[in-house]
Amino acid sequence: MSPSALNKDVGAYLDDPKNIERFINRLRDAVKIDSISGEPARRQRVIDMGEWLNQRLTDLGVTTELRDLGYEAGVFVDNVPVKLPPVILGRIGDDKNKKTVLIYGHYDVQPAAKEDGWITEPFELDVKADHKPGEKYDAEKRYGQMIGRGSSDDKGPILGWLNVLEAHNPTPQKPDEAKPKADPEWPTIPLPVNLRFCFEGMEESGSEGLDALIQKEANQEVGWFKGVDCVCISDNYWLGTTTPALTYGLRGLAYFKITVSGPARDLHSGVFGRAVHEPMTDLISLMSRLVDPAGNILVPGVDNVGPASTDELDIYEKLDYGLEDIKAAVGANIALSADRVQVMMGRMRMPSLSLHGIEGAFSGPGAKTVIPASVSGKFSIRLVPEQIKKQTPEEIAAKKPAEKLVDTVTALVTAYLESEFAKLGSKNRLTIEMLHGGEPWLEDPKHWSYAAAKKATEDEYGRPPDLTREGGSIPVTLTFAQSLEKNVLLLPMGRGDDGAHSTNEKLDKTNFVKGTKLFARYLYEIAEPNVGN
Amino acid sequence: MSPSALNKDVGAYLDDPKNIERFINRLRDAVKIDSISGEPARRQRVIDMGEWLNQRLTDLGVTTELRDLGYEAGVFVDNVPVKLPPVILGRIGDDKNKKTVLIYGHYDVQPAAKEDGWITEPFELDVKADHKPGEKYDAEKRYGQMIGRGSSDDKGPILGWLNVLEAHNPTPQKPDEAKPKADPEWPTIPLPVNLRFCFEGMEESGSEGLDALIQKEANQEVGWFKGVDCVCISDNYWLGTTTPALTYGLRGLAYFKITVSGPARDLHSGVFGRAVHEPMTDLISLMSRLVDPAGNILVPGVDNVGPASTDELDIYEKLDYGLEDIKAAVGANIALSADRVQVMMGRMRMPSLSLHGIEGAFSGPGAKTVIPASVSGKFSIRLVPEQIKKQTPEEIAAKKPAEKLVDTVTALVTAYLESEFAKLGSKNRLTIEMLHGGEPWLEDPKHWSYAAAKKATEDEYGRPPDLTREGGSIPVTLTFAQSLEKNVLLLPMGRGDDGAHSTNEKLDKTNFVKGTKLFARYLYEIAEPNVGN
Ligand SMILES: [Zn+2]
Ligand SMILES: [Zn+2]
Ligand SMILES: [Zn+2]
Ligand SMILES: [Zn+2]
Repeated sequence: MSPSALNKDVGAYLDDPKNIERFINRLRDAVKIDSISGEPARRQRVIDMGEWLNQRLTDLGVTTELRDLGYEAGVFVDNVPVKLPPVILGRIGDDKNKKTVLIYGHYDVQPAAKEDGWITEPFELDVKADHKPGEKYDAEKRYGQMIGRGSSDDKGPILGWLNVLEAHNPTPQKPDEAKPKADPEWPTIPLPVNLRFCFEGMEESGSEGLDALIQKEANQEVGWFKGVDCVCISDNYWLGTTTPALTYGLRGLAYFKITVSGPARDLHSGVFGRAVHEPMTDLISLMSRLVDPAGNILVPGVDNVGPASTDELDIYEKLDYGLEDIKAAVGANIALSADRVQVMMGRMRMPSLSLHGIEGAFSGPGAKTVIPASVSGKFSIRLVPEQIKKQTPEEIAAKKPAEKLVDTVTALVTAYLESEFAKLGSKNRLTIEMLHGGEPWLEDPKHWSYAAAKKATEDEYGRPPDLTREGGSIPVTLTFAQSLEKNVLLLPMGRGDDGAHSTNEKLDKTNFVKGTKLFARYLYEIAEPNVGN
Repeated sequence: MSPSALNKDVGAYLDDPKNIERFINRLRDAVKIDSISGEPARRQRVIDMGEWLNQRLTDLGVTTELRDLGYEAGVFVDNVPVKLPPVILGRIGDDKNKKTVLIYGHYDVQPAAKEDGWITEPFELDVKADHKPGEKYDAEKRYGQMIGRGSSDDKGPILGWLNVLEAHNPTPQKPDEAKPKADPEWPTIPLPVNLRFCFEGMEESGSEGLDALIQKEANQEVGWFKGVDCVCISDNYWLGTTTPALTYGLRGLAYFKITVSGPARDLHSGVFGRAVHEPMTDLISLMSRLVDPAGNILVPGVDNVGPASTDELDIYEKLDYGLEDIKAAVGANIALSADRVQVMMGRMRMPSLSLHGIEGAFSGPGAKTVIPASVSGKFSIRLVPEQIKKQTPEEIAAKKPAEKLVDTVTALVTAYLESEFAKLGSKNRLTIEMLHGGEPWLEDPKHWSYAAAKKATEDEYGRPPDLTREGGSIPVTLTFAQSLEKNVLLLPMGRGDDGAHSTNEKLDKTNFVKGTKLFARYLYEIAEPNVGN
């Protein structure tokens, strides 16, 4: 194995306990600002958080620009329109001989309240003691966890980048920040790459206005992102709790609502049962024709994903995640296969169809004998670029058909359901709507940016990362990939059990410290000669 | 056609406009008492209504007994238990040479409030003017309707019986009731039959305590219903708006809840779609195997109803109700067949299976991508005695297998669903519950009580009644049939569009007047020599 490219002083700075204490205190300050973007009445707190973050970036030598996105569409508090928090664009370094890396993160958080079941105040970072050698292990003690809303999603990762900046420029002497005692000890070190930052404050609430901004700034003549060589986003998680991950794919989504309507009003089943075509009977029959209990999608053309290549199979076989992990995560032994690789491929590289529920039918507890007049089934299909036709690796890399996958799948679903409905011989009416869709994203995991991240992970964690694809959508990923036409790397800091959108969200202290070093190592690996040339 | 048996003076009394005006005023008084049994806080109003009715019966010469049923189980208002309204038992006539007819009715009503969409105050009877010959017809004027809660369900029919009593004993001179001017004109006439009454005040809220009371009083040695020859209940409706009906069957019901459970908590479909067995997929698959879009029940053994006999077919062919009526009632052209007789047999003599909804799945508007952890499908099967095995008319008359139909169907449904679930190969868990059940009821429509009612209908309305079977349950019917082992006749007063449990419940004035006379005629037909011997 080749030696680590990380600057030794930078590594030492990031390992120093006093510095780590200050990093944690800075995270505490960030968590304290309850920047919940989903509650318009508290929008000022998100803006406060943006200003706090902007100040820290400026202190660390970053040139910033706060982009005003105007007002949130259709949202008013006491009849007053509500401002969107600014997008913070940052820039440090303009050396033409260095690569330029664009970093994305979001400074808003999910809602949180103590009464939802938090064991601590969600906006007071609670740093648990480490497990001491010889101490009897007690999971309740949450050794080394830093519990607080935003700790892992996404303030911890953002601060990781700030820690890296500070390690190169260790004099952030501001009245509101304790001066690092060790200051004179640490040299100023040039960054190995040019950095660009894009930090938004509305990620948890739809990222209004962000796509347009990115598309505009991607202009290689005049845009802020001019000269960017690759993008790195730290806003997802490892598969499990022990092995780091690099994520190179996200499934897309097409969400459907199909409605069967018949009578003008709800009917009494005693009076009209077996006299008329019942919308529920038709709807349930249609929904049963979408997916089988083994997970196979029955809509012709939608499930046409070819077999995995040897390279791909290799990725799945190496994943540090097994049936026991699935069982632990879902709380039951219900994996679709006893073959670990099949299960992980089902989760990552296959499309899936989930039936979510029915609107308009009886859904309460107890018994009601009504025949509902109109019922709407809701289901969604997770999309992967390999659907519809087998693609060559070159086509995948070129992201060719992905641009229209939602439309293609919608057409296939519509044609199939209409044809199946005709077979029912019902006199009811069927309507099919695609409520919202998003294209899948798939990156070439052999790109130099991934190779750099892999090397950085091996150096920091002593093991190769899992190469993962995910189901949840991070829409900005696709926007960056398509606008910049550059490689995008998802480089998670937190673990699979961080509970990003749940109660008791946490980031493990080790993930914060080692994740920060991983970020630094990644930049140094990218800066190595021969990389990307 | 043989001459009408109705006493001429009784007929004249019931046709006299002044008497009719007083009958309507008495209905107005009854409607004014908002005897809603479903609102425990207003229970006193139901009790008030019972006392009012008891007073009228006593005035008319009926010996009554108010049976205290104690307190409503588990119901408290301000921590005080809530009394059940009394059952009024009444008795008039003990002539061993006359038949004894037991009349049932209920003096409580469904809830009603102006703001629910009533065009008038629900507890102020609003009597609309009749359509005048030559006047341009305007449906908005609701010609001849008497609108008010309880007008048709079931105060109008109860007062019909009181009108009949008064026609035989026209001196109800009480301070609170205007003395009929024509009093001296009208002779006192002996009733053609002995009458027994059973009027309850909790029908709309489960009839707590009534079954036990009936079973006790059915004792032929000591019970209040000793000597009863037949039972007559007026608490249902014609099929349509023009042809009277006699009802000789009610479908039973078995209500099922089937639950598929898998993960310990709801899952994100992006993360776990196509990795685990999804409870919704299994449940929808099972529900689709219960009934086909043509209404056929797919549970083996449950749909085994033999073809209709010639006599039965004759009943259906003669029904004054067609596809246009179904279309009007449901507001859409969705009948299961273009064959009127098939549709009406589906509604009346066939079992039906309706899928009502799903508990635990996403049921709101919009889009949610969750995989629900546990989902429960609700469906019910309407039962007819002919199910399971073909029965001979004698067996039907003997009500043989009906006693255990709910159990038989539950066993068939359980075995079938367990076997189908096993075929799915799912690792989720299935549980099956029968939430509540009621046996069907079927009477011999050739019984003398029905023959008498048919003759009475022909005499009063100039046309034979529809012979109907219904889907809604009137549980007391089966209780009377089984406890007394006597014929039970359902003799409706109101029309199919009365809207018994809806806003703007009404009874047409003509139905009240002619219905009263129908009741009188029925008693006289029963009293004819040779009937029932
Ligand atoms: Zn995030
Ligand atoms: Zn998030
Ligand atoms: Zn009723
Ligand atoms: Zn009722």
